[in-house]
Amino acid sequence: MPNPTAAILIIGDEILSGRTRDSNMHFLAGELTRVGIDLAEVRVVPDVQARIVAALNDLRAAWDHVFTSGGIGPTHDDITADAVAAAFGVALDIRQDAYDILAAHYAATGLEFNAARQRMARIPAGATLIDNPISAAPGFSLGNVHVMAGVPSIFQAMVASVLPGLTGGDPLMSQSYRIDRGEGVIAEPLGALAAEFPDLSFGSYPFIRNGAHGSNVVIRGHDAARIDAAMTRLAALFPGDGA
Amino acid sequence: MPNPTAAILIIGDEILSGRTRDSNMHFLAGELTRVGIDLAEVRVVPDVQARIVAALNDLRAAWDHVFTSGGIGPTHDDITADAVAAAFGVALDIRQDAYDILAAHYAATGLEFNAARQRMARIPAGATLIDNPISAAPGFSLGNVHVMAGVPSIFQAMVASVLPGLTGGDPLMSQSYRIDRGEGVIAEPLGALAAEFPDLSFGSYPFIRNGAHGSNVVIRGHDAARIDAAMTRLAALFPGDGA
Repeated sequence: MPNPTAAILIIGDEILSGRTRDSNMHFLAGELTRVGIDLAEVRVVPDVQARIVAALNDLRAAWDHVFTSGGIGPTHDDITADAVAAAFGVALDIRQDAYDILAAHYAATGLEFNAARQRMARIPAGATLIDNPISAAPGFSLGNVHVMAGVPSIFQAMVASVLPGLTGGDPLMSQSYRIDRGEGVIAEPLGALAAEFPDLSFGSYPFIRNGAHGSNVVIRGHDAARIDAAMTRLAALFPGDGA
Repeated sequence: MPNPTAAILIIGDEILSGRTRDSNMHFLAGELTRVGIDLAEVRVVPDVQARIVAALNDLRAAWDHVFTSGGIGPTHDDITADAVAAAFGVALDIRQDAYDILAAHYAATGLEFNAARQRMARIPAGATLIDNPISAAPGFSLGNVHVMAGVPSIFQAMVASVLPGLTGGDPLMSQSYRIDRGEGVIAEPLGALAAEFPDLSFGSYPFIRNGAHGSNVVIRGHDAARIDAAMTRLAALFPGDGA
């Protein structure tokens, strides 16, 4: 059975303007690979409801899971919950369990539980809350869409809450082999080797170090013995280079 | 007149598997902001021709420019030129000027100009070459699609070649103001202030530092005087906080 598939939807003007360098995509990509969910696509869209809705509807139809990052705080530019409710055509109201979690958090910290903070208790109808052990305001899962905060520490905590509940597949394993020669030298034998192992994926990632060209060859697949066999062949083709 | 718009299409299994953390999106986002081209969308897709073609056709129809990153090297997984040719329905053949650039480069470096390297001279019909001062193999522009290498140093050099030839708009300017209080405290006055300046964009980017919540408020727009006016109001709302 093929692995489940996923997309990440990153929501935020600050990423598109270059102000903030996103780190959530790279983090979640690694986590998904670890649990055997194949990340098929990532999109970044601005804080514009129509754009978020359109991307959500594309991605949730195309892939088994959609993970979103950003836009669930208390400020006027936090419109992800509105967009998810609109995409699914469901109501968005303050929900008692989310409200109680936030009320307890602000009571404990001595901060005012004002209208802006109460806004974070608005959850689309039918959703399941995602625990936020850092700042209380919950994320939520609705259908195959998992809505999480953009702040990296909170995003990572929410990923840790959500992933164990999803059915993964065979973890994607990989081995890499560094070859201190330009890709142009290795391309032909590497392509021929890749053709011999159609069940594996062969990637070649060139680098330039101290002016010299090299490449990291990565062999990926779901069968460790096959990867070992391919690595043995690769090492024989390029002896003297290293893992 | 509104600014031109752009999308970035990042091509590569290594980004989606979490092996490599992309840096080209963040770099180009900043450069586009500087020259007044509004980055409207980013997508990341795997090294699969049908997926690249579909994304290219979506993005080039929706936005004024599309910048791609990755997949133009000599190995079997470098299929971006093939995908661009397929998306535009044009031929992909070895082109003499690209061939000559590569031949001169390999003659000068004493490396063999073999079939894999000659593959990098395949340019879709009608394209304009993009100079690669680092490793010679050119990128290309076809219509509104600009195809560049994924290696960050080469990507950045190609961006420097391409951007001056594009018509930009008013640079998007921004000022930021750090407020060492949680977003929940500032949300209401900030939302009201944003409503007073509909020509500007107000973003609030929460952070957690040493366990304390704060937020960087960023005001963006194309009119420096208006941004100054809004910043003055913001500082009056939250005195004692800092830029």
